[in-house]
Amino acid sequence: MAERRSEREIIRAISDQLAGGASGVLQGIGDDCAVLRPAGDRLQVWTVDTLLESVHFDLGWHPAKLLGRKAAAVNLSDIAAMGAVPRFALLSLGLPATQTAEWVDGFMAGFVESLAAAGVALIGGDTVLSMGQLSLSVTVGGEVAEEDVLYRSGAQVDDVIWVSGPLGEAAAGLALCREGVAADDPVWASLVKAHLDPEPELALGPLLAAGGHVHAMMDLSDGIATDLAHLCAASGVGAELVAEQLPLSQPLRAAAMRLRCAPLDWALRGGEDYRLLFTAPAGATLDLESLAAERLGRQLYCVGRIVQGSGVFLRDGSKRHDISYQGYDHFAP
Amino acid sequence: MAERRSEREIIRAISDQLAGGASGVLQGIGDDCAVLRPAGDRLQVWTVDTLLESVHFDLGWHPAKLLGRKAAAVNLSDIAAMGAVPRFALLSLGLPATQTAEWVDGFMAGFVESLAAAGVALIGGDTVLSMGQLSLSVTVGGEVAEEDVLYRSGAQVDDVIWVSGPLGEAAAGLALCREGVAADDPVWASLVKAHLDPEPELALGPLLAAGGHVHAMMDLSDGIATDLAHLCAASGVGAELVAEQLPLSQPLRAAAMRLRCAPLDWALRGGEDYRLLFTAPAGATLDLESLAAERLGRQLYCVGRIVQGSGVFLRDGSKRHDISYQGYDHFAP
Repeated sequence: MAERRSEREIIRAISDQLAGGASGVLQGIGDDCAVLRPAGDRLQVWTVDTLLESVHFDLGWHPAKLLGRKAAAVNLSDIAAMGAVPRFALLSLGLPATQTAEWVDGFMAGFVESLAAAGVALIGGDTVLSMGQLSLSVTVGGEVAEEDVLYRSGAQVDDVIWVSGPLGEAAAGLALCREGVAADDPVWASLVKAHLDPEPELALGPLLAAGGHVHAMMDLSDGIATDLAHLCAASGVGAELVAEQLPLSQPLRAAAMRLRCAPLDWALRGGEDYRLLFTAPAGATLDLESLAAERLGRQLYCVGRIVQGSGVFLRDGSKRHDISYQGYDHFAP
Repeated sequence: MAERRSEREIIRAISDQLAGGASGVLQGIGDDCAVLRPAGDRLQVWTVDTLLESVHFDLGWHPAKLLGRKAAAVNLSDIAAMGAVPRFALLSLGLPATQTAEWVDGFMAGFVESLAAAGVALIGGDTVLSMGQLSLSVTVGGEVAEEDVLYRSGAQVDDVIWVSGPLGEAAAGLALCREGVAADDPVWASLVKAHLDPEPELALGPLLAAGGHVHAMMDLSDGIATDLAHLCAASGVGAELVAEQLPLSQPLRAAAMRLRCAPLDWALRGGEDYRLLFTAPAGATLDLESLAAERLGRQLYCVGRIVQGSGVFLRDGSKRHDISYQGYDHFAP
């Protein structure tokens, strides 16, 4: 195959896409380790997420460049959820021999584009042959002032529970892709984009953290039923969501009708929303709404309340269901 | 299956194995990101390495616990090669549904044991289902004083080239495992251990770096023919190895006879030695040898010289061969 490249050629092609000289980076790709000079007055945050073929993505409908953007986004989202600013990334690429040079270049173009837009330097990684599926493991480091960092564990009883956008969009988009419903139909464009090319909350996360009102924050990756249960467990509280307050978009409702699915299921249990989930005292409501609207033109959605006890409950009309941990679980029997 | 666990149960089982309260770690496993307070007076080094089933290991002969130790070791080796001390680790585990709870516990016991022995805190990671092979992606961060950090790029013409132990041991051990030659025969124990359970140079790396004599250093992971070529390219120099100076152990020579292989091939081209490769001025020879012997009871091996030009050459009797980049390449056609 004329396009097969050696490991060195692949790494050189990756390095060639990078801009040099990021601040704080003494050595990037090309040695045993990257070397950083940490900002002395800030905390660091670090996260890793792996995307595996057939589990997290399907090459049949996921364009290489968008998959590159998504591999960056899912990690950048974790950084934003701490209220931090991303700075450094490492990429570990497990490539089947069948993956073409063109595919790798497309993937890297998307990955590097998203990092660059976020001000992140690609400082290292490795490239290995895979005998099975394609695997993408991304590590990202960020920085945050000590007084701003937001944990999952800070939620307090009577806090309002917020989300930063409509829920279930990515799950609906995935269902549309799976069913082969035309991905280029503009009716479904927002849902399909939510699945293929999610946007991490890079501006909103640090803005909320610096605003001083938010008690606890995390990103939505496994569905609010599971993610909120994690936040509650870490905070030693319970939560009550109100079904009619969950933000469901028009396209999501239309897709649910088309595919005969329950839109609420996508909203509660669908993974990969990459929206922020956070809690704040009720008295901060107007401040939070105007901060997001004025600084970013964004709407926030109040979806429930933190309560005493434990577990996540959904109030739906007069009924109250325990929905704790009913989101996505890789290993659910 | 009684032993199947949910994602939460797997993560809890991992967390239960960890000692808490590592210095500099404000938040470990359990939030969107780990949170660190970097040491203000030191540089940081970061590396990631992925091990994939059927490429890097074979579950047929690799015990879970030793694979856990190895997943740590290959990354700790990169940290040692910068002259740094490892501090933090993140683990991304892609688990096939067939992998038992017992296997995961054994793997984690080995991984955590090696980290603990090195003073490293496991601060985060993720656990995902794999539809194909088992994948292990490990990120490790370390710290080093700015005046001590050693790059690949510092080699100078006339430097002596050193390695920190016999070469090709892991390649010979792998060949013995592949051929099904009794792994518990004590004759082959050192070779099989080099493949299954390599020891990173955690003490020697920082000792050499702080000693002040070494110009350039890296770890041997793809065979000296390739690794030294990387070091030479980074330093803008060439290298000449002397065949009879390459340290080949008695067990390696015996295994080569038994399997009808060329021992020099294992030494030059075999991967996964995880020994240190470094260069220093000839005048430092006695100092280096006595430092390693007195402080660690270790022998160092002088294997050649840095020369003008480029490329890695092997002097074998009166012949001189170009062996640049003839080590392991995942993507070699």
